[in-house]
Amino acid sequence: MKIGIYGYGNLGRGAALAALGENDVQLVGIFTRRDPAAIEAPAGVPVFPAAKVTDFAGEIDVLLNCGGSKTDLPESTPRLARYFNLVDSFDTHALLPAHIAKTHAAAKETGHVALVAAGWDPGLFSLFRAYACGLFPAANVATFWGPGVSQGHTQAVKRIPGVADAVQFTVPDKERLRAFQAAGTAPSPEASHRRVCWVVAPQEQQDRIRREIGSMPQYFSGYRTEVNFVSQKELERKKTAAHGGNVLAALVTGKNSETRHLAQFRLSLGSNPEFTGAVLVGFARAVHAMALNGDAGAKTVFDIPPALLFTESAPADILRFL
Amino acid sequence: MKIGIYGYGNLGRGAALAALGENDVQLVGIFTRRDPAAIEAPAGVPVFPAAKVTDFAGEIDVLLNCGGSKTDLPESTPRLARYFNLVDSFDTHALLPAHIAKTHAAAKETGHVALVAAGWDPGLFSLFRAYACGLFPAANVATFWGPGVSQGHTQAVKRIPGVADAVQFTVPDKERLRAFQAAGTAPSPEASHRRVCWVVAPQEQQDRIRREIGSMPQYFSGYRTEVNFVSQKELERKKTAAHGGNVLAALVTGKNSETRHLAQFRLSLGSNPEFTGAVLVGFARAVHAMALNGDAGAKTVFDIPPALLFTESAPADILRFL
Repeated sequence: MKIGIYGYGNLGRGAALAALGENDVQLVGIFTRRDPAAIEAPAGVPVFPAAKVTDFAGEIDVLLNCGGSKTDLPESTPRLARYFNLVDSFDTHALLPAHIAKTHAAAKETGHVALVAAGWDPGLFSLFRAYACGLFPAANVATFWGPGVSQGHTQAVKRIPGVADAVQFTVPDKERLRAFQAAGTAPSPEASHRRVCWVVAPQEQQDRIRREIGSMPQYFSGYRTEVNFVSQKELERKKTAAHGGNVLAALVTGKNSETRHLAQFRLSLGSNPEFTGAVLVGFARAVHAMALNGDAGAKTVFDIPPALLFTESAPADILRFL
Repeated sequence: MKIGIYGYGNLGRGAALAALGENDVQLVGIFTRRDPAAIEAPAGVPVFPAAKVTDFAGEIDVLLNCGGSKTDLPESTPRLARYFNLVDSFDTHALLPAHIAKTHAAAKETGHVALVAAGWDPGLFSLFRAYACGLFPAANVATFWGPGVSQGHTQAVKRIPGVADAVQFTVPDKERLRAFQAAGTAPSPEASHRRVCWVVAPQEQQDRIRREIGSMPQYFSGYRTEVNFVSQKELERKKTAAHGGNVLAALVTGKNSETRHLAQFRLSLGSNPEFTGAVLVGFARAVHAMALNGDAGAKTVFDIPPALLFTESAPADILRFL
């Protein structure tokens, strides 16, 4: 499978590492908006200007679109789905229907498969929620993210004028997680987490930046948000790639819903971008298979039979996981 | 969706409870090898002799085959797949390829969809293993079952001549689970569990029964097996429907596989047969949808896109789980 990587930030580097580690994957190139000569790419991997990517139509089986959700992906995924099968990790839940609709139109018209919102959340956590709620329509589900740095939220803070650098930690409320395990009652995401920002910015701009963070829709509005201003040196010590979280589902059966069951999915990630990059490469196999089968349009992880993740699709190879 | 239940033991009763709890499900009938008049069925649900089931071909959308894996399902699933779309919970891993092949031939020839090995393991745990190993081909996976009563193993013990009654507890080795979380090294299933049998049998037959249990292939051979003989009264106190387990996947990324991640899926079940029955009803929706789409043949959970679990298949309804 010939892979291209579009965007070479943290996620692009994670995806490149994952692609180079797989025997069945050839990394055709990295496409960047920065000066290709300034990119430290892995040995042997060519780097091209982002604008040249369409020259590679037909030479890349699946393009991994590794841009940010806030401003990159809403524009680039529908545009690139006209030229490539692709995978992105769009994670702004409220804007997903519009993102899917635009991408679907482009991909369907040109005969490409475009998987959007792949990663761990949205992605693997979404799968857990869908199996729980699909099999048990009355399921009560709660997701606890972190503690860890959210790249989407960090990027959103860094785009605010005056912000020199920043990280955003998502911190779950352990008491509410334990309460859910015990009683199966789900708090809102806003009540179950704090969003803790560490920001480098000139003192005279800090009040405005604090207000802009707290009022940012989808990202911070409605959450308990803590904004701390620190020096660049202090910020470097805060930075970590580790992340993770838990999704829990309280399920009931019995004549009067008297029998209780608990399902829990936990991820503890040494590196969020490396893990997410590997997930994109993994799902690219399924996208490639779907495109070879003549499928087209925007897809989510819910549209993919797990068997398509395997290249050796002989049933016997997959049956060992049953 | 019109559902039939074939076999009315613990699992059949759990499936009936689940079917009656869903608005979109009509329970057409329960089919039993016992005297229908002796069955305590839920109010309003007709009970028929098992031999009459083929009279209902065309009147049942999906038949839930709730027989046991040891002797019932290998015979009944391929036979019934000629008349019905169906779901079974066949759980003898070593015999799955043969079970699938026989079922596939029957279902394909007659235009039915037959989902085999649905439940929690095989079933939901299988899905976790497949996503982990499909996305991360180098994943190291370990499954820890219990503590809880394995119905398949209990049935297997009860079929031994001379056994009046029995239960089999699968007990996971907590030390090995913690070692896997810490180091990512997977022991064999045989090394990670004990199988503890409580058996009611005449004293003069106990030595032979103990030997027969310990040497039973697929079920006990190779496991640390403990066989205890007790009175019927003591056995009743041991019986519990609770079960559960953990599947863990140790995943690595990075240039030299230096970055470690852990994924864990935990189920804590108030009632194994009620939970498994609900899972069969849930997957029946997907089987029904696949059959309506013109698909046919034997399927596993790996062949089912999660979106098919939802009856309201408008994309917007499912996107809320992303």
